[in-house]
Amino acid sequence: MLSTAEPIDSVFRALADPTRRHVLERLNRGPGSVSELAQPFDMALPSFVEHLKVLEESGLVRSRKNGRVRTYQLVPKRLKLAEDWLIRQRRLWVRRLDQLDAYLLTLKEKER
Amino acid sequence: MLSTAEPIDSVFRALADPTRRHVLERLNRGPGSVSELAQPFDMALPSFVEHLKVLEESGLVRSRKNGRVRTYQLVPKRLKLAEDWLIRQRRLWVRRLDQLDAYLLTLKEKER
Repeated sequence: MLSTAEPIDSVFRALADPTRRHVLERLNRGPGSVSELAQPFDMALPSFVEHLKVLEESGLVRSRKNGRVRTYQLVPKRLKLAEDWLIRQRRLWVRRLDQLDAYLLTLKEKER
Repeated sequence: MLSTAEPIDSVFRALADPTRRHVLERLNRGPGSVSELAQPFDMALPSFVEHLKVLEESGLVRSRKNGRVRTYQLVPKRLKLAEDWLIRQRRLWVRRLDQLDAYLLTLKEKER
């Protein structure tokens, strides 16, 4: 089995940091400039900009420059990649539990 | 805003790798030993064991040793942490779109 890097890898990696998740939660309420987004964080601006870069490279956000102000917005489609994978796992899990249930019922029937 | 490491961080980090996601998909069909889990991958065993370690540290899997065989199983509750965060984001996003819709309708009404 070959394991090559996939877009979903960078999505999950981007989500693995609380600062980046907070930025996504903020962008869920509407677009924001770098300084607006950085405001709640007690963090040097270059470190914060690095987080924005990781988010943009993952495709979870995109930015546009208007004059000197760069504004970020969410790309919800990208979050769906991760959500779909997780939901698929849960469905498989639930199906497995159902099969186990059915099997246990069969055993019970046989005991009678 | 303080950003401290949270359990969900290590869950998303563990999910950011195709080998680890494949192992989780495999464990979704039932428990497996190290050699069973490693079999589909063209990878040196120490590297593969490293992936299992990342998965176990994230709480997504747990292992038990029986004699010389270590068996892994999925901990579905842990996946739910990530799923819940993503679903919450989508709900907020949908609500925002609804509000935008309502606002656009108001504008339309005024135009009449």
